[in-house]
Amino acid sequence: MVEINLQEIHDLLVTIAHEAGRLMLAATPSHLSSGTKKNCKTNPSFPLPPQKLPHPAADLVTETDQAVEKMVSTRLLSAHPTFKFIGEETYYPGQKLTDSPTFIVDPIDGTTNFVHAFPAFCISLGLAVNKSPVVGVIYNPFLEELYTGIKGKGSFVTRNGLKLRLPLKQEPEPLRDLSTCLVGAEWGSDRTGNNFELKSKVFTKLASSKEQGGAMVHSIRCVGSAALNLVLVAAGQQDVFWEGGCWAWDVCAGWCILVEAGGIMVGGNPGDWEATIEGRKYLAIRGAPSGQKDIVEEMWKVIGDGKMDYES
Amino acid sequence: MVEINLQEIHDLLVTIAHEAGRLMLAATPSHLSSGTKKNCKTNPSFPLPPQKLPHPAADLVTETDQAVEKMVSTRLLSAHPTFKFIGEETYYPGQKLTDSPTFIVDPIDGTTNFVHAFPAFCISLGLAVNKSPVVGVIYNPFLEELYTGIKGKGSFVTRNGLKLRLPLKQEPEPLRDLSTCLVGAEWGSDRTGNNFELKSKVFTKLASSKEQGGAMVHSIRCVGSAALNLVLVAAGQQDVFWEGGCWAWDVCAGWCILVEAGGIMVGGNPGDWEATIEGRKYLAIRGAPSGQKDIVEEMWKVIGDGKMDYES
Repeated sequence: MVEINLQEIHDLLVTIAHEAGRLMLAATPSHLSSGTKKNCKTNPSFPLPPQKLPHPAADLVTETDQAVEKMVSTRLLSAHPTFKFIGEETYYPGQKLTDSPTFIVDPIDGTTNFVHAFPAFCISLGLAVNKSPVVGVIYNPFLEELYTGIKGKGSFVTRNGLKLRLPLKQEPEPLRDLSTCLVGAEWGSDRTGNNFELKSKVFTKLASSKEQGGAMVHSIRCVGSAALNLVLVAAGQQDVFWEGGCWAWDVCAGWCILVEAGGIMVGGNPGDWEATIEGRKYLAIRGAPSGQKDIVEEMWKVIGDGKMDYES
Repeated sequence: MVEINLQEIHDLLVTIAHEAGRLMLAATPSHLSSGTKKNCKTNPSFPLPPQKLPHPAADLVTETDQAVEKMVSTRLLSAHPTFKFIGEETYYPGQKLTDSPTFIVDPIDGTTNFVHAFPAFCISLGLAVNKSPVVGVIYNPFLEELYTGIKGKGSFVTRNGLKLRLPLKQEPEPLRDLSTCLVGAEWGSDRTGNNFELKSKVFTKLASSKEQGGAMVHSIRCVGSAALNLVLVAAGQQDVFWEGGCWAWDVCAGWCILVEAGGIMVGGNPGDWEATIEGRKYLAIRGAPSGQKDIVEEMWKVIGDGKMDYES
């Protein structure tokens, strides 16, 4: 097999991420894009009808999602016609990741936020080879924050024109126990049944005092985007992210960025040390000189006998 | 009584907020401030010992909290010696808000975030007259976002050098029901007893499907700062914020900004239409041409027979 130039792919993904960001801001409720005018000015000819701007209804979100994914897949596959492509908008049940180089793309991660203009949505662009994430690019156009990672070359955030290596702290502190941890976790969109009940129970147990058998975590944060949760953990600004129900395109890019920042990814169900991109249940721990596996074990203990069951 | 020049006080609070922001960034873990170097450069002589920077322990947080509050109270009371001052760090049990003009200050709102460098912490500076918020200034130094409000003169966010009126949407949509709402709610630091149990129950009921008797909210967000929750609601980026346990200094500034953006604030317990700054239980609803009171009623219905009991 021909060697793949990961740096070149990274550079292409960064260019595409910025282009996608402009589409997203142009299509969001007008008030949001007005907050970042400098982006929109550079792209006066976005393809979405301007008269729709004040109505961020489900239709517009779908339309933008599809428009962004179309642009991304066209750009990527014309540059790399032999690669495969998995995207949220074109995914079909039964589509499986193979060992072939595969772009794994979420055009808009955090769509609920996108609808409300809550400032935590992004595009997530990953490349997997042999089912392992090797390049990741995540861009939050509202905050103009770009997170990138290349296998073996580290990961970075670019903000205010300054590119910083992740984790942000050069010497991250050891992980002690969950009571010192800031934990990202999301309610998700399934609001009934076993998975929902388990999440609800785990959230309460995570927060609950030690006297009551809880983990007394430092706190729980819900930002509403799996990709942004993963980069927060990569940056060391969140210690843990526990998730069930999201998809390959929500985690592929962030996974690469996380691992390059010294973080680890395991499965979201107890005992699952070998997480897979398509596994739909994930547990991410930030980079640390010690304690990562202890946090995994403690987190799994909180889950107890429970088990999330998402079809993958 | 002499007329108070609210614009002048607003301008002073903005100046002080930026100064406090520099202290906060200088005192946070060095990795964080390195992300916003341009701020730190302008303040090379911050008073906190640099050798402490890499250790964001509880001590340093307390030290920074106190240093910022000291600076703020000194500046405010030298400019307005007849005004009263209530601050988180100098508050004593029994201290009560009176009708006198009173500065109400949280030097660092979101201290858990501050410790973890999670990018949602701020200074919250309010002025209350006759126990009603009349000026509010909230500044997030990491994102360089400034939120301001003056009674009768509207509220604004300044970001990227652009000052925008709140709410961000010129014509906010009517509020329909909770199922269309993005709701901010926090676990807080009390992790046992009635208040904790009620919160846990309400979170699950808010998220739960309608078939199960839940409100099926669009989603729940936890950013970890009451002040930033309030400005998100003021901006229209979050529809609702429900909170119990926080204090006058967490809400005074945000309350003014919220109301000036068309939002309303009521009590966090069912039936409490007349919320007070010191009430410790709050429910904030974004500006909307209709539906605000319906959302309040629906939210209170979710709480049901429950009642938060924080001493005020």
